[in-house]
Amino acid sequence: MRALHGGNIYNDEIQNIKNICSERFLDFSANINPLGIPERVRAAAVAAMDQAVHYPDPFCRKLRAALADEYGLPPETFICGNGGADLIYRLVYALRPGCALLTAPTFAEYEEALRQTDTRCLFYFMEQDLEVRYDILEQMDASVDVMFLCNPNNPTGLLVQQDLLLQILQKAARMGILLVADECFLDFTGQEERSLVSYIKETPYLFILKSFTKMYAMPGLRLGYGISGNRELLERMERAGQCWGVSVLASEAGIAALGEKEYKKRAVSLVREERAYLKRELEIAGMRVWEGQADYLFFRAPGILDLYERLLPLGILIRRCENYRGLDGSCYRVAVKDHEANVRLAEAVREVL
Amino acid sequence: MRALHGGNIYNDEIQNIKNICSERFLDFSANINPLGIPERVRAAAVAAMDQAVHYPDPFCRKLRAALADEYGLPPETFICGNGGADLIYRLVYALRPGCALLTAPTFAEYEEALRQTDTRCLFYFMEQDLEVRYDILEQMDASVDVMFLCNPNNPTGLLVQQDLLLQILQKAARMGILLVADECFLDFTGQEERSLVSYIKETPYLFILKSFTKMYAMPGLRLGYGISGNRELLERMERAGQCWGVSVLASEAGIAALGEKEYKKRAVSLVREERAYLKRELEIAGMRVWEGQADYLFFRAPGILDLYERLLPLGILIRRCENYRGLDGSCYRVAVKDHEANVRLAEAVREVL
Repeated sequence: MRALHGGNIYNDEIQNIKNICSERFLDFSANINPLGIPERVRAAAVAAMDQAVHYPDPFCRKLRAALADEYGLPPETFICGNGGADLIYRLVYALRPGCALLTAPTFAEYEEALRQTDTRCLFYFMEQDLEVRYDILEQMDASVDVMFLCNPNNPTGLLVQQDLLLQILQKAARMGILLVADECFLDFTGQEERSLVSYIKETPYLFILKSFTKMYAMPGLRLGYGISGNRELLERMERAGQCWGVSVLASEAGIAALGEKEYKKRAVSLVREERAYLKRELEIAGMRVWEGQADYLFFRAPGILDLYERLLPLGILIRRCENYRGLDGSCYRVAVKDHEANVRLAEAVREVL
Repeated sequence: MRALHGGNIYNDEIQNIKNICSERFLDFSANINPLGIPERVRAAAVAAMDQAVHYPDPFCRKLRAALADEYGLPPETFICGNGGADLIYRLVYALRPGCALLTAPTFAEYEEALRQTDTRCLFYFMEQDLEVRYDILEQMDASVDVMFLCNPNNPTGLLVQQDLLLQILQKAARMGILLVADECFLDFTGQEERSLVSYIKETPYLFILKSFTKMYAMPGLRLGYGISGNRELLERMERAGQCWGVSVLASEAGIAALGEKEYKKRAVSLVREERAYLKRELEIAGMRVWEGQADYLFFRAPGILDLYERLLPLGILIRRCENYRGLDGSCYRVAVKDHEANVRLAEAVREVL
């Protein structure tokens, strides 16, 4: 069984630390909005318990209608899933691609899913600076069926240059490569104009992955969605898994979340401020911190391979990144949390060095 | 997109009827415990909202430990999923079977899942009486990789004779055919001694599918599980989909549900009594009703192809069965509900005939 990701707070060691630290335990390994679940979203999920005696709507009509309103797009361009990760597997099973192009490092779930269909994976290894550069276009050849691009990337938080992103989109359309643009963290950058969503009318070779998990701090509820103008793809994805994937609670929580405009603004603003603070503090402590734009920061601790182990006894859980392709044991990712938590992280890092 | 099953109350026509009938609308198309969600299960799900800010445990440790306690089996013999249907797809993707044996009619999701892996499906067509007979053993030959057996069957509610069931199990083990025994409705029969669960220690060629949905009336929460002694299969199933399939709410609800022994007894007893009542009433109305043992009844309305359409304006939704393989438009399935609802169904059937 797998434990590839952050947020895995359930093993004995961490449960033990949690019990010892109690309220003082801080999970920096999962990138969740520090403002927590909005009250109205929580209330909507709880109220939906009255509907849990019914099967969910296989077509997610109400949620898709709400998404259609939000984006000004037809409901048919949306697919909903049991978290964004569910949609990654559905997409891969729907396509059964012969060959995929992935950046490295990036979110591990793409490759995990592609293994299930024996897809050949080509990697665009980013150099030391972990940026996507124009030479990625050269790897987009006729052998590639699908390409995953996480923007901003996980774990680095870096955005792809907009001009390059559009060239990738164009080349994908021209070559018949399905571009899967994972924009699950784009909300946090405050630069949503970088989204490719406006292009879904122009090309069927684009699928945009979105999640409610991070912005609305509801990973435990499971809700994600995809946007594409490729209806055949969406229909195949529906068939690639059960018809009741989205719980009635998640669906109602998602509809409520779409109304939380003020909350979102506050979150983006808080994260911007705290990200800058945390970056500075980590740099003062001697870390090499990347210019991440999301609600997390990626850094190298030069020569320090046990920062995770040093911080854990203090009740602080960070994300080791050595299991990302192309990274090593000196690489870490931390969520940007509220100020008090970030101060504690900065202090703890100084303390253990 | 698909609408294969009962419980699909979300289309415009039915929403319209629901609005008109309001409280008087009755959904007999989904087979859900008439006692509703147990109060403690609901409370556990609501309390778990405090944990929804965290990702679920990829290994479902707590729920699997509770299941292990309940069954007296090691936690490693359980896999949890986003409803039983999630596990059907995971199993099929994990196996990618070349050839499958299915009974007809049965739950449509097996065949739907098997289509995704281009599996050749062989059908054991049950005769007029819709019983599984000993000649099914002849179809279990070396070409078959996996066999699905729903016990009691959906939509008929019929149990496989126990001696035959054991012969099927033995032959499956001998031939290397994975027997998927879907026991999702077995709880309701009051004959849980018919479960194959005690055999999972004896053969790796057995996978038992179970659900929380029906007994605990929580289809909207999504929670099912599987039991098998075949650890390699379970590990492959874990990898065949995302690692956060089970929401934290569903997990906590499931743990609470396992404690609801009295509720379960009351449900089995109520369903037994009401099933007998409803069967009699439907027979008096001229229906041919099968000896179903679950919380639903299957019947033929001789020559009446529009019973569904006749009942709907009265605010009563039943399950048409013509889209089951081997059945026709005179076949219907109704849930066994509480006495008041069953009386209304019986009256309505008489009224529209």
